[in-house]
Amino acid sequence: MTIQNVCILGAGTLGSRVALQSAISGYQVNVYDITQKALDGSFETMKKILNQLQKANAITEDEAVASLSRILFTLDPEKAIANADLVNESVTEEPDIKKKVWKQFGALAPEKTILTTNTSYMLASMFAEDSGRPNKFCAFHFHDVFYSRVVDIMPHPGTDPELIPILEKFGRSINQVPVLVKKENHGYIFNSMLLALIGAAGKLLTNEVAEVEAIDKSWMVNFHMPMGPFGILDSIGLDTAWHVTHNRPDKASQAFAALLKGYIDQGKLGEKTGEGFYTYPKPRYKDPDFVI
Amino acid sequence: MTIQNVCILGAGTLGSRVALQSAISGYQVNVYDITQKALDGSFETMKKILNQLQKANAITEDEAVASLSRILFTLDPEKAIANADLVNESVTEEPDIKKKVWKQFGALAPEKTILTTNTSYMLASMFAEDSGRPNKFCAFHFHDVFYSRVVDIMPHPGTDPELIPILEKFGRSINQVPVLVKKENHGYIFNSMLLALIGAAGKLLTNEVAEVEAIDKSWMVNFHMPMGPFGILDSIGLDTAWHVTHNRPDKASQAFAALLKGYIDQGKLGEKTGEGFYTYPKPRYKDPDFVI
Ligand SMILES: NC(=O)c1ccc[n+]([C@@H]2O[C@H](COP(=O)([O-])OP(=O)(O)OC[C@H]3O[C@@H](n4cnc5c(N)ncnc54)[C@H](O)[C@@H]3O)[C@@H](O)[C@H]2O)c1
Ligand SMILES: NC(=O)c1ccc[n+]([C@@H]2O[C@H](COP(=O)([O-])OP(=O)(O)OC[C@H]3O[C@@H](n4cnc5c(N)ncnc54)[C@H](O)[C@@H]3O)[C@@H](O)[C@H]2O)c1
Repeated sequence: MTIQNVCILGAGTLGSRVALQSAISGYQVNVYDITQKALDGSFETMKKILNQLQKANAITEDEAVASLSRILFTLDPEKAIANADLVNESVTEEPDIKKKVWKQFGALAPEKTILTTNTSYMLASMFAEDSGRPNKFCAFHFHDVFYSRVVDIMPHPGTDPELIPILEKFGRSINQVPVLVKKENHGYIFNSMLLALIGAAGKLLTNEVAEVEAIDKSWMVNFHMPMGPFGILDSIGLDTAWHVTHNRPDKASQAFAALLKGYIDQGKLGEKTGEGFYTYPKPRYKDPDFVI
Repeated sequence: MTIQNVCILGAGTLGSRVALQSAISGYQVNVYDITQKALDGSFETMKKILNQLQKANAITEDEAVASLSRILFTLDPEKAIANADLVNESVTEEPDIKKKVWKQFGALAPEKTILTTNTSYMLASMFAEDSGRPNKFCAFHFHDVFYSRVVDIMPHPGTDPELIPILEKFGRSINQVPVLVKKENHGYIFNSMLLALIGAAGKLLTNEVAEVEAIDKSWMVNFHMPMGPFGILDSIGLDTAWHVTHNRPDKASQAFAALLKGYIDQGKLGEKTGEGFYTYPKPRYKDPDFVI
């Protein structure tokens, strides 16, 4: 089958990005959300991203206009999904919301539709049955679409294997690098490695082996990277990191979750609140003299 | 105190690099080893590195010649250490060899000398007493000196804290980024994080969650890095990785050590043997089409 029409459920941060990149790549895209405010916000986000892409000479103004013309924003579920070849669900990361959305859209979707979820911390098997068509259901997980271009294809045990090459081809066609996660794994591939890195950094800090800046410097200088683990944590958000960490049973995770909680209780959630391990908008690690 | 004369014990891979960078930065450097062959090899290595630095316009030919003229290669222990302000021991990573070297050179070193070890996987406290001057003894651990410019300063419990600012200053003066490891920790800072990353990658592979290339792609594309964990493993050497992994008690490390052992038993140690997870000199991950 060839994918032509894409439907995005949830017009937040990720939904907007996946929708926009699909439209830039020539697909017809319907974007659905439950409030007009969310749809309006999504449109504004897309215009901002298109502006940046134009500035970077990645697309022309004509292409930007044409891309937006291929996107339909709608509050009407039936209209959103009518004729969709592929749905990517990017609604709020709450099991109950996702379950509800999949019951609703599984019933509305045409026979042909491939059903995918963009969940970061849950698994496709948690919603596959709700969709009513588990064999057509697969996790299809993006990172940030424009800078980090990996898309994970993670089937659950009931996924029809024929979906995989279709999703690989579609992923490539929207400028992503598809990677196959052969069986369900919390954190897919990248996030489980990132979490291990962040866990090791957290352990060095809570065990008082080294300070935040020494840890970040070690990573940045040896790997020539623009951020270290604590810079990354500030950009992910300390609240998100705490959510992932505090349920892990091992002592090191518990100690690091407790340390994160201390920051969170002071309102220090990272970049988005202006302070986390560093202070924004000019964190120390971005100083040219940080790595000397 | 001001450091002027540097003595390097062990003219292998790391000793040659530390010696050369010290000479480039203006220090008088004595390089000691137990065989003339090792010293000759060190001289060749240095000339190669200087050539590369000249090609990259990092130094002039005059500077290269002047740098080499500041280095004395010697098989004579007394001559090597006479007048040394700082010793960096970079001999073979074997406890017995290092113990012997520190007994010998601790007895020969002038009163003023700061004694440092470049050990990657052991701790300064294992040799501090052998040197006879534990208060003057500290781990001072380089990465590869030219590309990865971090130097770890890791005191053992008996190290005189006054050494730390001296080593920081010296580290900066030879173009390194010094980081303080506040107390002894296997793997310093960077290596403990790298090991966590590699462990997570190994677990994804042994649990059959993903293949080598999918794991490396995920890391490379999301972080815009030239290698992923398995490319890194190939460059470190699978034998070295096995040494670090097989003593760890957890199930995941044991499974990964067993997998590494399978490669090692086939003579696949990584880049140095032409094959590891990839085949050299043209590993797949360096193909321009790898990340599409
Ligand atoms: N933010 C990231 O970096 C990131 C990366 C990869 C994947 N994800 C995943 O993408 C999904 C969305 O994350 P986000 O960061 O875009 O969240 P977000 O909060 O920015 O957006 C979620 C959107 O879903 C909408 N929504 C809520 N209930 C809905 C319903 N019943 N029907 C339709 N829309 C509904 C909300 O109005 C909101 O616009 C999550 O599953 C998340 O794990 C996020
Ligand atoms: N190779 C790396 O990437 C790296 C990085 C950081 C630190 N290190 C550390 O540096 C040290 C040296 O590692 P390397 O990779 O350069 O090893 P290497 O095998 O290349 O060199 C070791 C040298 O020590 C010499 N030696 C052996 N016994 C000696 C003695 N009694 N007196 C003087 N010299 C003696 C050998 O002849 C050889 O030239 C180790 O402790 C290692 O952990 C290595």
